[in-house]
Amino acid sequence: MPNTNLKLALVQMPVGLDKAKNVAAACSKIGEAAHAGAQIVILPEMFNCPYANTYFSLFAEPAGGDTWQAMSNCARQNAVLLVAGSMPENAEGRIYNTSFVFNRRGEPIARHRKVHLFDINVEGGQQFRESATFSPGGTITVFDTEYGRLGLCVCFDLRFPELARLMALQGAQAIIVPGAFNMTTGPAHWELLFRQRAVDNQLFTIGVAPARDENGVYVSYGNSIVCSPWGEVLYRAGAQETTLMAEIDLSLNERIRSQLPLLSALRHDLYRTVDLTLEG
Amino acid sequence: MPNTNLKLALVQMPVGLDKAKNVAAACSKIGEAAHAGAQIVILPEMFNCPYANTYFSLFAEPAGGDTWQAMSNCARQNAVLLVAGSMPENAEGRIYNTSFVFNRRGEPIARHRKVHLFDINVEGGQQFRESATFSPGGTITVFDTEYGRLGLCVCFDLRFPELARLMALQGAQAIIVPGAFNMTTGPAHWELLFRQRAVDNQLFTIGVAPARDENGVYVSYGNSIVCSPWGEVLYRAGAQETTLMAEIDLSLNERIRSQLPLLSALRHDLYRTVDLTLEG
Repeated sequence: MPNTNLKLALVQMPVGLDKAKNVAAACSKIGEAAHAGAQIVILPEMFNCPYANTYFSLFAEPAGGDTWQAMSNCARQNAVLLVAGSMPENAEGRIYNTSFVFNRRGEPIARHRKVHLFDINVEGGQQFRESATFSPGGTITVFDTEYGRLGLCVCFDLRFPELARLMALQGAQAIIVPGAFNMTTGPAHWELLFRQRAVDNQLFTIGVAPARDENGVYVSYGNSIVCSPWGEVLYRAGAQETTLMAEIDLSLNERIRSQLPLLSALRHDLYRTVDLTLEG
Repeated sequence: MPNTNLKLALVQMPVGLDKAKNVAAACSKIGEAAHAGAQIVILPEMFNCPYANTYFSLFAEPAGGDTWQAMSNCARQNAVLLVAGSMPENAEGRIYNTSFVFNRRGEPIARHRKVHLFDINVEGGQQFRESATFSPGGTITVFDTEYGRLGLCVCFDLRFPELARLMALQGAQAIIVPGAFNMTTGPAHWELLFRQRAVDNQLFTIGVAPARDENGVYVSYGNSIVCSPWGEVLYRAGAQETTLMAEIDLSLNERIRSQLPLLSALRHDLYRTVDLTLEG
């Protein structure tokens, strides 16, 4: 049996216009979190790049590039499992919003390219069109760790219950979501989404956002969060720069699932959520 | 184009041990709601029967039985669309937790038999085992009205995002849910569920519960609720007996869907929620 008690660090960091500085700040925070006992460190969406279409192309790097290498080194030097938020990745002439995961030896063990691009146009609120720059990923991502199987998606992906359901059915015990909601969608939906995906799938949900910069090109809602499989908000940051240390016990999932059987009560004779990427 | 402005009445009524009294009380409240301008009247789950396995069999009636007939008459006499909460229905030697719907002429236009039975055993909290008495239904239910297409499910059914998703994909503009959460699951999950299903599917959600009776065989949480497609709680009752009058405009769904495109952003090339009842 894996050890189900986990210490997490949710790095709610500011992200500025200088990529090298962003990466150095991330490394420094990863080191501090490891020193404080974190076994898994999670960075926010676009931790090395301002959240704006004009920067995504400029800051994009391939897997194995400078940022990627720095993250691998950081994971190894600090002996932590590192979910390196997300960064603009270029590959085969396309740009993706990609989260890379490294184990405590610095080896890459998972990669999620955001599959739902954030295109929104709220009257009097947020406008954004990620699809102007990014290409969408094509996989649903779970990966095995010494602590159990984990699921990974990026920000807007969490809005689609199919993705969380499939990760749960594929054995994820927690869903990790680097995300950057804004001042329109954040107050309206951020907490709600993390709570409900946790309740529906009876697992932990973990969201990590950049710190809010009221003068930034995109104003992040912040509020990095950890929810229990009963839907309780166990930990939640405010808007400011912070590293939120969280302790969770993944074995709670099974206790909740036995008391309120949902996953075992699915009527798979009437409906089914199908992962089409597993076929053929 | 149908008129998308709707006046609803959510009848949060007490339910006692006398079936005829329960039915008479429902009729009286339907009449009052119609007089107050309601076009759709919704009763709670098990409006004619105490929520306990010992009563379900005793109180069960077939479609066309006394309660059913009274509801049909009530809808016709008051010229309202009536979602007659739910009642124990017997059919072919089985008992179902069934919601019947009647149009303003009293004609039956839809029927939903609860497809997920409520079996729960929370440490120090609620215990219940509906499957000891009920058989599960086998359909996903949407129906057409002069106001547009509506979806219908009963209580525990709402916990399964597949069902709400399929109703939305099949054109439901609102999901109506007679339900009776309890004092364990109600405070934890009732509002959350109605808000999140509304946000995910960009439609209205409407829950109608029995009034709370602290001395009843099952203590209903109450809190009948109407949520907007943006996830706002537009109307919400307390615990006590009341008829909650609500005005909604179903055209809000389209406005939300165009500003925050979710249903059109589903990655049906990667995953799909399939309604298996539509096959063959």
